[in-house]
Amino acid sequence: MSPVVQKALSRIESLGRVSDSPSHLVRTFLSSANLRAARLVLGWMEELGMETSHAADGTIRGVFPGTTEETRPLLLGSHLDTVIDAGRYDGALGIIAALAALETMVESGGAPAFPVHVLGFSDEEGIRFQTTYLGSRPLAAPLDAASLAATDADGITLAEAIAREGWHEGAVPIRYEPGSLLGYVELHIEQGRVLEEEGLAACAVTAIAGQSRLRVSLTGRADHAGTTPMPLRRDALCGAAECILAAESLARETPPLVVTVGRIEVHPGASNSVPQSALFTIDLRHPDDAARTDALTRLEHRMRSIATNRGLSLQWMPVQDGNAVVCDPALTSRLLDAAESVTGTRLGLASGAGHDAVALSAICPVGMIFVRCRGGLSHHPDEHASPEDIAAGIGVLARFLQSPLC
Amino acid sequence: MSPVVQKALSRIESLGRVSDSPSHLVRTFLSSANLRAARLVLGWMEELGMETSHAADGTIRGVFPGTTEETRPLLLGSHLDTVIDAGRYDGALGIIAALAALETMVESGGAPAFPVHVLGFSDEEGIRFQTTYLGSRPLAAPLDAASLAATDADGITLAEAIAREGWHEGAVPIRYEPGSLLGYVELHIEQGRVLEEEGLAACAVTAIAGQSRLRVSLTGRADHAGTTPMPLRRDALCGAAECILAAESLARETPPLVVTVGRIEVHPGASNSVPQSALFTIDLRHPDDAARTDALTRLEHRMRSIATNRGLSLQWMPVQDGNAVVCDPALTSRLLDAAESVTGTRLGLASGAGHDAVALSAICPVGMIFVRCRGGLSHHPDEHASPEDIAAGIGVLARFLQSPLC
Repeated sequence: MSPVVQKALSRIESLGRVSDSPSHLVRTFLSSANLRAARLVLGWMEELGMETSHAADGTIRGVFPGTTEETRPLLLGSHLDTVIDAGRYDGALGIIAALAALETMVESGGAPAFPVHVLGFSDEEGIRFQTTYLGSRPLAAPLDAASLAATDADGITLAEAIAREGWHEGAVPIRYEPGSLLGYVELHIEQGRVLEEEGLAACAVTAIAGQSRLRVSLTGRADHAGTTPMPLRRDALCGAAECILAAESLARETPPLVVTVGRIEVHPGASNSVPQSALFTIDLRHPDDAARTDALTRLEHRMRSIATNRGLSLQWMPVQDGNAVVCDPALTSRLLDAAESVTGTRLGLASGAGHDAVALSAICPVGMIFVRCRGGLSHHPDEHASPEDIAAGIGVLARFLQSPLC
Repeated sequence: MSPVVQKALSRIESLGRVSDSPSHLVRTFLSSANLRAARLVLGWMEELGMETSHAADGTIRGVFPGTTEETRPLLLGSHLDTVIDAGRYDGALGIIAALAALETMVESGGAPAFPVHVLGFSDEEGIRFQTTYLGSRPLAAPLDAASLAATDADGITLAEAIAREGWHEGAVPIRYEPGSLLGYVELHIEQGRVLEEEGLAACAVTAIAGQSRLRVSLTGRADHAGTTPMPLRRDALCGAAECILAAESLARETPPLVVTVGRIEVHPGASNSVPQSALFTIDLRHPDDAARTDALTRLEHRMRSIATNRGLSLQWMPVQDGNAVVCDPALTSRLLDAAESVTGTRLGLASGAGHDAVALSAICPVGMIFVRCRGGLSHHPDEHASPEDIAAGIGVLARFLQSPLC
């Protein structure tokens, strides 16, 4: 294991100890631990000779100069915040790997041809305000009024939180104009099991899936479980069961579509009552927006005909639609080259989870690297990426930095 | 409408106004309203010239003498108690119809050949102590220690409730020896929709279904709804959906089996998490015990193979088994004759719901008459049986009382 990788592993442990709780890892927007983590990482950036700065909202930046006349920077980074009872790799690894990749170049006497800005975003998970990418969105545009009016559990608005709790001393805005950047590249643990199944340490990412969230309610008739013969029933839960299996079949038939029913509520919910109504959620994701929309249409059609056949009424209630982000083909081609040179395999995966790259895609081309994590487990203290896989990820990023991007 | 039927209808309204709540109908074990209802009905029995008595637990009896040397009585009756926010017919109709049937005989100058005892049981629904047939079970045997130790929502045991709140003044035990009775016949609203579907006012009952209650848990693996491709999932809710449809299919294939999944809980229950576990109830009823046991075996087999195919672990947890009660063929044949003479159709239905006849079957032959109720609705203030159907039910019972039972 090279000294650079060893230092990166040790930094993951150090950053993993910076928490708002003594018993578990948690760092939410503008929390004491989140700002301590920002200062810790700024120190590491300074060790690398980077020029550092921070924004009032807790996002940090380190600037490494390029060796050519190219003034457009490449952005690298990920998020400093965590979920509650988090693992040590989600977010942290992307920032630490970016520094390690630069250090790898420096150690071998090289330097990137273009400026590299390493960013640590103060919020990606959205735990405190239930609104994601709070740290990365301001790089593209000021947060809108609706976001600033979001409140946390104590009723404090986001605007108030930044005004009262922000890191104002020496703060500078961190913002970029569209077209002023070579791109944004983020390394992140996969948070899934595909790399494990493929036996691969790392890969490039081709797209971040679009997501539709819906609620569906089915209403039939409550009946006595003992006195109502089967042909006379209009059982909402049996209808929901058929809908759930229809959703599963559709997704199985048309990969990489994924459809999940994660919640269901039944009324009256008594063991001796035929269910009158069932309300369930749908989470449907696809890296191609047209395919996602098509899947939604097909699913609605299937569910409506299930309801009709059973004499149930169906309500189809869209909750949220987020479009897919396609990774930049040129950047991704370079990332695939780099990953192939390290792992021997050229694999591009679609990400089913959202990442800061979604926010950055508003102003520049984006690309991503996934690193294998054990069992696909994330958002959990047992989250783990092996030292070898982390070394591979850093290697892919370092190799990529040598690409002729400009 | 005959004066007897009109009086019965008016009594249903009167009894329906005797409630522990000003806003809705409720009469639970030993409540003030339940005892007021008992006194009201005792008055009606005395109008008919019956010799009346009551037990300390609030169950009442009126005795009408027979015209022959037969000393074994026929018992008629139903329960005085109600569920919360009840209808006016469940229970009450059986007692009032018994009195009306006797009155019909008397009006026409007749009288039963055998003694008729009309009973009003203080508890069938089990609302207060969550233990059913509290009123009718003591006719066969003293309540066992486990029943007497049952507690209500205030922590009062059943034994304490009877001691403190019982109707002790002038109380006598109401108990019968096995073999000392001609039988027990109960008229009750159907609480289902079969008579409505058949276009029939009333019918005889052939059996009271046995019931098995179970809980089934399926455990798979929680996963991220975005990052876990369908083939890598072990989704407990999809498994439960398949099990629910298997239960429905089995019941549809083998009437009169009824199977109901009335409750389901999913963990972690987040819209963006693949469900790790699903816990659901099964209520399975059949009037034939061997067929019920066979259905349970087949259902367990089907569900276990669904779980195996999906990589889920399954726990099959029986909660309760109650055997079917077969109505006495001789009594039922008389009831079918009587019903056919009134409605023109000879139909015997199995009851999916339990009734006091289950408790009485321990000591004597039992039979039942069902009266159509609107939409099958019961345990609801909109519960309704039409005057014509009530008249038909009384007619069936009156006709039956003319049968040569002894």
